[in-house]
Amino acid sequence: MSDSWLPTLRTSTPQEGWELAAKMSRVGVKITQPSDEIRSRLRPGYSENADSLIAASHVIAVNFQTVAAANDYWREG
Amino acid sequence: MSDSWLPTLRTSTPQEGWELAAKMSRVGVKITQPSDEIRSRLRPGYSENADSLIAASHVIAVNFQTVAAANDYWREG
Amino acid sequence: MSDSWLPTLRTSTPQEGWELAAKMSRVGVKITQPSDEIRSRLRPGYSENADSLIAASHVIAVNFQTVAAANDYWREG
Amino acid sequence: MSDSWLPTLRTSTPQEGWELAAKMSRVGVKITQPSDEIRSRLRPGYSENADSLIAASHVIAVNFQTVAAANDYWREG
Amino acid sequence: MSDSWLPTLRTSTPQEGWELAAKMSRVGVKITQPSDEIRSRLRPGYSENADSLIAASHVIAVNFQTVAAANDYWREG
Amino acid sequence: MSDSWLPTLRTSTPQEGWELAAKMSRVGVKITQPSDEIRSRLRPGYSENADSLIAASHVIAVNFQTVAAANDYWREG
Repeated sequence: MSDSWLPTLRTSTPQEGWELAAKMSRVGVKITQPSDEIRSRLRPGYSENADSLIAASHVIAVNFQTVAAANDYWREG
Repeated sequence: MSDSWLPTLRTSTPQEGWELAAKMSRVGVKITQPSDEIRSRLRPGYSENADSLIAASHVIAVNFQTVAAANDYWREG
Repeated sequence: MSDSWLPTLRTSTPQEGWELAAKMSRVGVKITQPSDEIRSRLRPGYSENADSLIAASHVIAVNFQTVAAANDYWREG
Repeated sequence: MSDSWLPTLRTSTPQEGWELAAKMSRVGVKITQPSDEIRSRLRPGYSENADSLIAASHVIAVNFQTVAAANDYWREG
Repeated sequence: MSDSWLPTLRTSTPQEGWELAAKMSRVGVKITQPSDEIRSRLRPGYSENADSLIAASHVIAVNFQTVAAANDYWREG
Repeated sequence: MSDSWLPTLRTSTPQEGWELAAKMSRVGVKITQPSDEIRSRLRPGYSENADSLIAASHVIAVNFQTVAAANDYWREG
């Protein structure tokens, strides 16, 4: 996590903002569990569990609020 | 997810904004579980589970906050 | 869900705004589980489960944030 | 729920705002489970369950965000 | 809860704001379970449960959003 | 927790803001469970549980909203 992964919150389009929000959500997991190996092992469990998927979608939604505000909702776009 | 699905956060009406928020919530699930087949298999489980439905409604509510702000709450509408 | 149920976020009073927020929360459930019959069947389960009730109250609170902002918190009211 | 319980979001002090937020959280439960008898029956269960208490505190926090914004954070107070 | 515990949302520093947010989170629990005895009894359970601790941290985060906004993020500080 | 750990919400870059948000999330846990020994003991459990990791990512997302707003989304950056 020492390298640069979040240089700016600005994106060209809402969709790129969404992808950034999804990345932020994944990094939020990674900061608590840095092992790629363990995260891969967990994947089958949560990616086939509806409640986990809804919870993951929730985190993206929260991060997207931040990214959208940072881009003034792409009003000029 | 490579095609364009979120060109803008602007909608004509609050209800269209709500539908966009619901779509964003579904895409948030899809980004974690891209397989249509697996998501379909999960559907009966969560769509008949009250807590899952409330959680899904929660995610829509969060996304709708973003869409509503992006449209200045359709004040001019 | 094809008919018009959310023409505006404006309401005359905070309490009407609260009722709209509760409606939005219910529609958020309905969009995932459109069957009236299944939702009715689920009702006894969640309506007598404290955690489900708290979760439902949470969703209303989130939607009310949006409605309240849309009405500028009824400051002029 | 037909009588008037939320005439305004304005309160004189932050603490009164907090009490209003707690009331809104309770009404959010009541709207889903209107029976006083059933809610009373549920009380021992959730009021001695730490996770339910934390969840209830969460809902108050969300409602308090709304009330605090409506009062401009009592900056003039 | 009848005495004054929230006279203002203003604090001198972000850290004091954080402590206020933690206090608000505790009071949110206390309002639902006023018995000191019962809350003390619950403590060992949730304070050694990772999910409860994360949930408690979440509530503080939400309350801190309110306190930080009330202090204009201590920009002048 | 008596020493100074949150002197300001300002950071130079979004990524430093993210790291601050992660720290705030950890301190939110620490305030409820101050024992380093107990928190270390809990770590294996939650750090290998997908739902706990998603919940932890959620708390970071909420704290990051606050930090990002405090930095005006690093718009000048």
